[in-house]
Amino acid sequence: MSAPDVSPLRLGIAGLGTVGIGVVKIVQRHADLLSVRSGRPVVITAVSARDRTKNRDADLSGYAWESDPVALAQRDDIDVFVELMGGHEGAAKDAMEAALNSGKDVVTANKALLAHHGQQLAESAEALGRVIRFEAAVAGGIPVIKALTEGLSGNAIRRVMGVMNGTCNYILTRMESAGLPYETVFEEARALGYLEADPTLDVGGIDAGHKLAILAAIAFGTKVSFDAVQLEGIGKISIDDIRRADDMGYKIKLLGVAQITGRGLEQRMMPCLVPSSSPFGQLQGGTNMVLLEGDSVGQIVLRGAGAGEGPTASAVMGDVVDLARGLRMPTFGQPAATLADPVPAVASAPAAYYLRLELMDKPGALAKVAMVLGEAGISISRMRQYGHADTTAPVLIVTHKTTRDAIDRAIGGFPATGVVAGDAVAMRIEEV
Amino acid sequence: MSAPDVSPLRLGIAGLGTVGIGVVKIVQRHADLLSVRSGRPVVITAVSARDRTKNRDADLSGYAWESDPVALAQRDDIDVFVELMGGHEGAAKDAMEAALNSGKDVVTANKALLAHHGQQLAESAEALGRVIRFEAAVAGGIPVIKALTEGLSGNAIRRVMGVMNGTCNYILTRMESAGLPYETVFEEARALGYLEADPTLDVGGIDAGHKLAILAAIAFGTKVSFDAVQLEGIGKISIDDIRRADDMGYKIKLLGVAQITGRGLEQRMMPCLVPSSSPFGQLQGGTNMVLLEGDSVGQIVLRGAGAGEGPTASAVMGDVVDLARGLRMPTFGQPAATLADPVPAVASAPAAYYLRLELMDKPGALAKVAMVLGEAGISISRMRQYGHADTTAPVLIVTHKTTRDAIDRAIGGFPATGVVAGDAVAMRIEEV
Repeated sequence: MSAPDVSPLRLGIAGLGTVGIGVVKIVQRHADLLSVRSGRPVVITAVSARDRTKNRDADLSGYAWESDPVALAQRDDIDVFVELMGGHEGAAKDAMEAALNSGKDVVTANKALLAHHGQQLAESAEALGRVIRFEAAVAGGIPVIKALTEGLSGNAIRRVMGVMNGTCNYILTRMESAGLPYETVFEEARALGYLEADPTLDVGGIDAGHKLAILAAIAFGTKVSFDAVQLEGIGKISIDDIRRADDMGYKIKLLGVAQITGRGLEQRMMPCLVPSSSPFGQLQGGTNMVLLEGDSVGQIVLRGAGAGEGPTASAVMGDVVDLARGLRMPTFGQPAATLADPVPAVASAPAAYYLRLELMDKPGALAKVAMVLGEAGISISRMRQYGHADTTAPVLIVTHKTTRDAIDRAIGGFPATGVVAGDAVAMRIEEV
Repeated sequence: MSAPDVSPLRLGIAGLGTVGIGVVKIVQRHADLLSVRSGRPVVITAVSARDRTKNRDADLSGYAWESDPVALAQRDDIDVFVELMGGHEGAAKDAMEAALNSGKDVVTANKALLAHHGQQLAESAEALGRVIRFEAAVAGGIPVIKALTEGLSGNAIRRVMGVMNGTCNYILTRMESAGLPYETVFEEARALGYLEADPTLDVGGIDAGHKLAILAAIAFGTKVSFDAVQLEGIGKISIDDIRRADDMGYKIKLLGVAQITGRGLEQRMMPCLVPSSSPFGQLQGGTNMVLLEGDSVGQIVLRGAGAGEGPTASAVMGDVVDLARGLRMPTFGQPAATLADPVPAVASAPAAYYLRLELMDKPGALAKVAMVLGEAGISISRMRQYGHADTTAPVLIVTHKTTRDAIDRAIGGFPATGVVAGDAVAMRIEEV
């Protein structure tokens, strides 16, 4: 406000896929709005992408073209390098480092890069006096990085939870609503273009795990540590479990949880059960939801589109306007040197568990299962046995709070009873 | 980051009620956290309140005491004046102006002051090179001002909606769950300390209207214009309407809506019906919820505690850390001089309406009502007639989209039919 910088903020955009073109469209459509809000014009100077000849849904004729993103990052006529290429090695990393080294601030949507190299990049940026912003990397259009890093900066954060991969949530809610098996809905999602080129990134929970690791670093002031995230994908979830869980009043979600307890830092991204009536339980389709829990603010829940051209470009532009307004802060909200080495929790906090097993039609079968659970120190909160199909009957058990260790001991003990067919399924029930 | 200001940021806190003490506690409890996040210490230098002798749940011995908030605002040893007194005239306004005039930035939770004098204060602040932040003024702990002003700055905002008075939502949900009439629950809320000293601020929709006017100014780049908010409180809502609406699949909420249409700027804060299954419909008790709709991001929904010591103090501290980090921007997100004079809409956008009337037990009664509606140009989507109690029977009508004018014409025509007892109740059904 005193002596503001009113020169244009000049963007160089690397990557002209859906999100990159979305950013171009916003800059072109909302030049006046961006200028009045930023206090200075926001312009695009140069762009880069792999294929110049590809037909794109935007007029790029006014921008210089670079085929090499590193060359784009080093141009003298850009102030901010907007990295929308993706990938955690190679071109994206090289170009971002080149941008920082040549005095550019960076806006990125690249969760993989930050999850793998966030600490190093944050240290580089600070040493060079540059800023990295990455709202678009987590939960698409939802301004969750801003809410956590800035809005809730007066709180000790207790817990962060989120459904942050829209494709997985789409698959799970579609399985339920259409009564279709995982494999069928997976192929549908692929045909609709909902899946990454490597679908394991989505359905293996990796993409969502990247996002969780980034949120945890900000929340707890720890170095981003994706390798310490307990990851489990949705590929083993059966339509049976979705239906049985629903009978017991739960939905199955790929839910990420990060919290610090006496045990250390827990980060897990895995399918778990949440009450059907909870905000997470009611989340349908590709929508994302994040819960932030602070010691003063209590629980804040944010919901919105987690992907797509408009929402992701909106997040990128929020960062761009922040930079145009002169906002400067360390990458993860505090100096990189002050981020602690996290102590990964050796075990998850206790929780209730959902168990599904197939009981053989033998006298005393249920008693034998109950005894195994009792010996593992697990007490039963609710149990439901269904009618027999052929020679086995599904049995659902909701336990009282117990540990994953105890659950694994019990599951290990079932075969010796001679009354449990196949493998038991166990899923954590998350309190939300 | 380059040549950062590492001197302590010194706060002067005016008003030591619930929120003021909440702020003191956070500054004391989280000195290290605030320092590492802000890049500099955050300290309290001086405080002021009406009664120095009052027993407060915090150690204030380390702070200078001023009995006059204007004197506090003018002290040389504060950088930020934290205004938590409330009220839109008198001491709060005088002190805030004194703070700006003596070179202080301001953080406030005062929605009434901003709703009434926001434009003038924004102009003063900018002329003096000072910053006013007010996250705590709207929706308590939810960082909605930040989300709208910063996170969604790349969007043309289409609509803002919100349940932003927790007391009203508490009363409405308690009426429903306990089956109690308005007057009883109102007295309960008063006994629980949920109501302002002047309860009309809450139940008359004024407090929520203040918040809506502030959001509208940011969303649409218009001068804050509280006088143009259509205000209607919850005092006339009967338990009957709550039950009947529920039968039809709706909940009644004191919901604020601001949008710009071809008709101009609409701002309304009034009871209306929302689908029971919608996020707003499911909102229980004192929780707040705000929906922000942008042209790129789509709908973002934020939920959290709208009042109380912790949540409101959390919002205040978010603003304080922003200032400590060096964030500076105009009050409403763009220069005050660029805020347009809003053209208030002469009529609300068309909507479906809920109508409840008492039909007399006479032949052809329903036909007469239907004829009045038809003559007003209103078509019926759903109608439900209940059994007679004595000589009248409740009739519920959900109309297709129509105008408030048409609804008022129909209501004006009912008496002449001779078959409608008492006054018909009409409420807008909001699409969410």
